[in-house]
Amino acid sequence: MNEDAEPVHRRLVITGSGIAGLTAAIYAARANNDPLVLEGDEPGGQLTLTTDVANYPGFPEGIGGTELINEMKEQAKRFGTEIEHGVIESIDDAERPYELTLASGKRYTADAVIVASGASARTLGVPGEDELMGYGVSTCATCDGAFFRGEEMLVVGGGDAAMEEATFLTKFASKVHLVHRREEFRAEDYWIERLEEHVEEGDIEVMRNTELAEIRGSPEEGVEDVSLLTNPEGHPSEKRDDPQTEEFDFDVGAVFLAIGHTPNTDYLRDTSVEMDDAGYLTTAGGTGGGQTHTDVPGIFGAGDVVDHHYQQAVTAAGMGSKAALDADTYLETHADEAQTAPLAESDD
Amino acid sequence: MNEDAEPVHRRLVITGSGIAGLTAAIYAARANNDPLVLEGDEPGGQLTLTTDVANYPGFPEGIGGTELINEMKEQAKRFGTEIEHGVIESIDDAERPYELTLASGKRYTADAVIVASGASARTLGVPGEDELMGYGVSTCATCDGAFFRGEEMLVVGGGDAAMEEATFLTKFASKVHLVHRREEFRAEDYWIERLEEHVEEGDIEVMRNTELAEIRGSPEEGVEDVSLLTNPEGHPSEKRDDPQTEEFDFDVGAVFLAIGHTPNTDYLRDTSVEMDDAGYLTTAGGTGGGQTHTDVPGIFGAGDVVDHHYQQAVTAAGMGSKAALDADTYLETHADEAQTAPLAESDD
Repeated sequence: MNEDAEPVHRRLVITGSGIAGLTAAIYAARANNDPLVLEGDEPGGQLTLTTDVANYPGFPEGIGGTELINEMKEQAKRFGTEIEHGVIESIDDAERPYELTLASGKRYTADAVIVASGASARTLGVPGEDELMGYGVSTCATCDGAFFRGEEMLVVGGGDAAMEEATFLTKFASKVHLVHRREEFRAEDYWIERLEEHVEEGDIEVMRNTELAEIRGSPEEGVEDVSLLTNPEGHPSEKRDDPQTEEFDFDVGAVFLAIGHTPNTDYLRDTSVEMDDAGYLTTAGGTGGGQTHTDVPGIFGAGDVVDHHYQQAVTAAGMGSKAALDADTYLETHADEAQTAPLAESDD
Repeated sequence: MNEDAEPVHRRLVITGSGIAGLTAAIYAARANNDPLVLEGDEPGGQLTLTTDVANYPGFPEGIGGTELINEMKEQAKRFGTEIEHGVIESIDDAERPYELTLASGKRYTADAVIVASGASARTLGVPGEDELMGYGVSTCATCDGAFFRGEEMLVVGGGDAAMEEATFLTKFASKVHLVHRREEFRAEDYWIERLEEHVEEGDIEVMRNTELAEIRGSPEEGVEDVSLLTNPEGHPSEKRDDPQTEEFDFDVGAVFLAIGHTPNTDYLRDTSVEMDDAGYLTTAGGTGGGQTHTDVPGIFGAGDVVDHHYQQAVTAAGMGSKAALDADTYLETHADEAQTAPLAESDD
């Protein structure tokens, strides 16, 4: 800890090195705003968990998630972006310039901040999950699928990610079991069809209206088996007393969770930045300029930390670009006063 | 003309083959919405006017505007998009499915329409302009400014865009010359003040009551010099015989036209789709789902036909993706009724 050291001043800090943060960096660097990207514990963000990105426009043959992120990193650096590892503990927006404190104790001040810290995979909170995370339980099929070659695997979820992961895992699994708490899938047709093809081929078996209730095993031996709950009306874990709800044991060697994400906004808790109940940043939106403004002047939001709906690589990139352009307009107007003046009540 | 032929029915028609339309097509094709892209008289849209796109994320070495468009076309086709040349004359939204009439007389009906017909940059029509467009003449300072680092640059215009571009270009230019045909600027005070600061610092020189009359150079060598016209009463090109009007040569390395854009929305004039005074589409905006909805159910907007502010390749791509996802949700919900039912007053 070096809390007594003077904080280092930066014109613009971008929190996160996913697709939104890197796109913001490309634009900010080209606008001579000398961006510092703070890269946290999930460098490159969620896109690095995807083997093959088929719908990012410009790559007709698809591109690997990590490869696309690396290209963007190179592009951002080429125009002068600095990228540094740093987990942010807190931001103090009581005075300008705003002060950022990292887990290492290092401090930065910044005239403007683009929040692009994304969202992290959600977990179920069932017994065994925490203890076996990384030992047979995973939130990333792409990362961990190959470790369980030849085993039966369980995927939990009903959206695009769950279909994609189940499909991907057929490469390794002796069989994939997809468990979804409702009857209907949220996934796009493309993925539902891929799923159905695998069901026909016998690679994937689907259990609808079913939930994972417990995972058993040990870090040494991995996952041994799980308990599942089922109810013909769906959402069985909310209906444990319903006579139609049944619990049964099921034998699998690995469990993959694909049940959505939680925005990474804990470090903003002491700021005045408005968030919704789930922790997503509230930005101005609209169709003119300033769409990425939060309610704190000089703090902007982009990517999955804001977007709880579309959550595509290209939509995150679009917002990253907007945030950098909004920040540039802000810095042109407010940069001088930002160095010295305290934050006015309503300054925009 | 084959007006008597039965119209051909399509699930989804996308008007425009620029970056917004093609991204929408990639997503719509993957969602099995069988998109037809109608490509008008500016195939590929405005991006094809840019030689080298340096800020589209994923291409660290940059990519040609036309090349990027071609990659997206291939990607859209690979997933089943059909692309056809067709200039739309009018859309009739009185009944569903909506009916589109092309200049050729051909007619389509469509359950949903994504309007992605873009905006066209206004040009002056002076000698040399067409020939040097993309070779030193540009309608986009953000796209092309960095290519002329260290050169003297000419910006034409008197509105916000002209001030913003002139200010932006000071980052790169040895000097920016702003040419405006009148005495007074149309721009908001904010931009006029920024401009004045730069004039004081010697970065920008303003020539009022002055117009660009000719651009000389070659695609190989770029812009060599220009001819300017000036008259103390303004609008010199309308007063060429006035003894007060003077013509003189002026040495610059690049010319940026910032005299506005016109959204391509004429063919929507008979619909109920809401547009602003300048003809830009009004969409729902916001930060949740449904951002690209117009006020007519089943008609969506994306790209520069909506966005009068950011107008970047990657922001257009982001909106294209959103429009396809919004259209998919709409088609899943409304497709059946859309085939038969007349349009209800408020149906969403």
